Amino acid sequence: MDAHVLTVGGEILAGDILDSNFHEIAAAFRDAGIRVTAHASVADDVDAIAGTIRRSVEEVDIVFVTGGLGPTPDDLTREGTARALGVGQTLREDLVPDLEATFRSHGGRTMPVSNLNQLRLPDGAEAISNPNGSAPGFRIETPRAVVFAVPGVPREMRWMLHEAVLPWLREHRSPTAIQVRLLRTQGIGESDLAERLAPHMDAWRGVGVAFYPHLPGVDVKLSHFGKDPRRMKRELDQAESEARRILGTYVYGSGKETLAEVVLRMLGERGWRLAVAESCTGGRVAAALTAVPGSSKAFDGGVVSYSNRAKSELLGVDPELLATHGAVSEAAARAMAEGMRERSGADVALGVTGIAGPGGGTAGKPVGLVYTAVAAPGGTRCWEMRHPGVRDAVQQRATSVALNRLRLVLLGEP
Amino acid sequence: MDAHVLTVGGEILAGDILDSNFHEIAAAFRDAGIRVTAHASVADDVDAIAGTIRRSVEEVDIVFVTGGLGPTPDDLTREGTARALGVGQTLREDLVPDLEATFRSHGGRTMPVSNLNQLRLPDGAEAISNPNGSAPGFRIETPRAVVFAVPGVPREMRWMLHEAVLPWLREHRSPTAIQVRLLRTQGIGESDLAERLAPHMDAWRGVGVAFYPHLPGVDVKLSHFGKDPRRMKRELDQAESEARRILGTYVYGSGKETLAEVVLRMLGERGWRLAVAESCTGGRVAAALTAVPGSSKAFDGGVVSYSNRAKSELLGVDPELLATHGAVSEAAARAMAEGMRERSGADVALGVTGIAGPGGGTAGKPVGLVYTAVAAPGGTRCWEMRHPGVRDAVQQRATSVALNRLRLVLLGEP
Repeated sequence: MDAHVLTVGGEILAGDILDSNFHEIAAAFRDAGIRVTAHASVADDVDAIAGTIRRSVEEVDIVFVTGGLGPTPDDLTREGTARALGVGQTLREDLVPDLEATFRSHGGRTMPVSNLNQLRLPDGAEAISNPNGSAPGFRIETPRAVVFAVPGVPREMRWMLHEAVLPWLREHRSPTAIQVRLLRTQGIGESDLAERLAPHMDAWRGVGVAFYPHLPGVDVKLSHFGKDPRRMKRELDQAESEARRILGTYVYGSGKETLAEVVLRMLGERGWRLAVAESCTGGRVAAALTAVPGSSKAFDGGVVSYSNRAKSELLGVDPELLATHGAVSEAAARAMAEGMRERSGADVALGVTGIAGPGGGTAGKPVGLVYTAVAAPGGTRCWEMRHPGVRDAVQQRATSVALNRLRLVLLGEP
Repeated sequence: MDAHVLTVGGEILAGDILDSNFHEIAAAFRDAGIRVTAHASVADDVDAIAGTIRRSVEEVDIVFVTGGLGPTPDDLTREGTARALGVGQTLREDLVPDLEATFRSHGGRTMPVSNLNQLRLPDGAEAISNPNGSAPGFRIETPRAVVFAVPGVPREMRWMLHEAVLPWLREHRSPTAIQVRLLRTQGIGESDLAERLAPHMDAWRGVGVAFYPHLPGVDVKLSHFGKDPRRMKRELDQAESEARRILGTYVYGSGKETLAEVVLRMLGERGWRLAVAESCTGGRVAAALTAVPGSSKAFDGGVVSYSNRAKSELLGVDPELLATHGAVSEAAARAMAEGMRERSGADVALGVTGIAGPGGGTAGKPVGLVYTAVAAPGGTRCWEMRHPGVRDAVQQRATSVALNRLRLVLLGEP
């Protein structure tokens, strides 16, 4: 079962507001086993509305329209739908008492006559009642598809979606189910992932594989549409366990888990406390950790030692070491992690120093060069990385790499 | 000048992520005097991509496509565009050295062969270089329209939009002019702003006023469309100066300036150095400051004293004070700011402590309670605030308030 979603209204296209409805609609449809194959957003223009609906009812099973149901002349979804389907419009007298009652209950106001426009539904449509506002929605069937039109106001849209549209679809269309697994990776690129998984994907019958690159890493999504939930689960289980075996420790988590959450959980399991000393990431590693509720259970805090003076005064890094090796060096990263561990009394400490740019780079130490050190009971280790991109990207990537290195140390990787 | 925007990719349709790109694109086009008349979002399906582009190039002047430029078989924007325009695709050998260099700079990795797919541009296309990733964008002209294709990764999209697409359109299509002024405020709500400005707005002929609330504060946007740049500028100058007079120190900056940038500039003018001690904001104040290039000129660093132990060991806060008043108290915030100032040798220091939630609140000290202290040469001052919202909102609001309090102290406000 495929669906198209159509958003009607000039506000979103004008860049004045963010379309928060669509994300919610897409997620609700996905969870109901309905695949949204396209979303269109058009202005209050009857030709654009009619043209889009006309194409959609030929292509998919469900057309879900939001917005354009108000009482003013620029609310054109009723007219656009009627025109798309080649039917007329009739003022639905049977709905007038309900609309008048809505106005009475809403502070005793008398209904403006213009509100009657909201009842001029396309012929053949069933009204969908609106307990949260004045505009009724409607449902109308075509030879292939069913069209739903609901208001654009998020609260009114949401109620109709969950209380009228999805229940009707479950009863009359019994959509297929979908199951999804998301594996989150760090330290490996999208094309590397695809090349490693490709030889195995043919054997994962019915399981779709997609890659979603973000700055913290690449997510691998395994999905399965179908009618037999047990078989889908079995086939997804097999695909997921093979993917995990192939990708090994590149996979840090699943679903919406963040690297910070994973690291904090691993620290909690060991009963270890963490402190971080940051230079080029400037507080981002600490901010990522403290974004997690309950992080205080395993995270003590840290130092943002942005200047050399801060490295010496707050972490006890020897000024001579900084003069000899430079503040961006393996020696400095190690001294920061060790100084942090000693001063805080934490079990494990991170030290991150690098050149975020845009200034400060040299031929030998270019922008993007970052050293990450982990000081743990077994000793201190350090890694050198060169991150591409502008300042913000370098800082974000360095933050993810720091948390990931800590994760690998906690996993006992050599 | 009308534009269509096409978003390619299954992620958004699947309800997995919110489409944050479109809002930004629509706003940027609007500000450039280009009207977006439709937005479509389609899955990784070559027929859907080609069909949408084919229709759009007949209807509008500009077609802006994001996503589907990666190296994997489900990246189909190049093929879809070629099919829509009836042209072939050629592997662009001339772009190979650049792509290889991108991979070399990214930790010396060898380029996987599959990445060459990213260079199979439609015939007749001009490549748009990508300093933030491996996929080039492209621009291709049709008899009526110009099609731009850029990656879906927000950072890569944003760079190409502002550095390549809009400059090209300004040079070759000269859209109607718009002039915009953005005044950024902190510490005052949207409806308060509207009420203060309303009595004056009628006199600002042709100047549109809009309010954009964000977590750091509310932006007041003054805009003027037209053909006479001098008159527009004169009328905008008048409106802006009146608005600034009415709003006083609620206005912290203009354009895209951040609070952190403003504070760093003010510190630089005084020759002062800053250090920050954060508890509930967990590194966000430091991260906001170090996001600004060149912040090291005025920012020394700081301490994230998340645990009580960290407050004592890294800042020298008396454990007895914490036992008596609690870690979330005016006394603790003052001691953090003063301890930070003393230990770092900075001229001015911030101390922030509070309850970000969701746990840890009590009747007397609820979630959202935050104390902000500024220790400066003239003494230490402290403010209590109660922020609404969930953990992330509390942390963001507390970060903005801390930077804003520091700004007001630097301004000499009583």
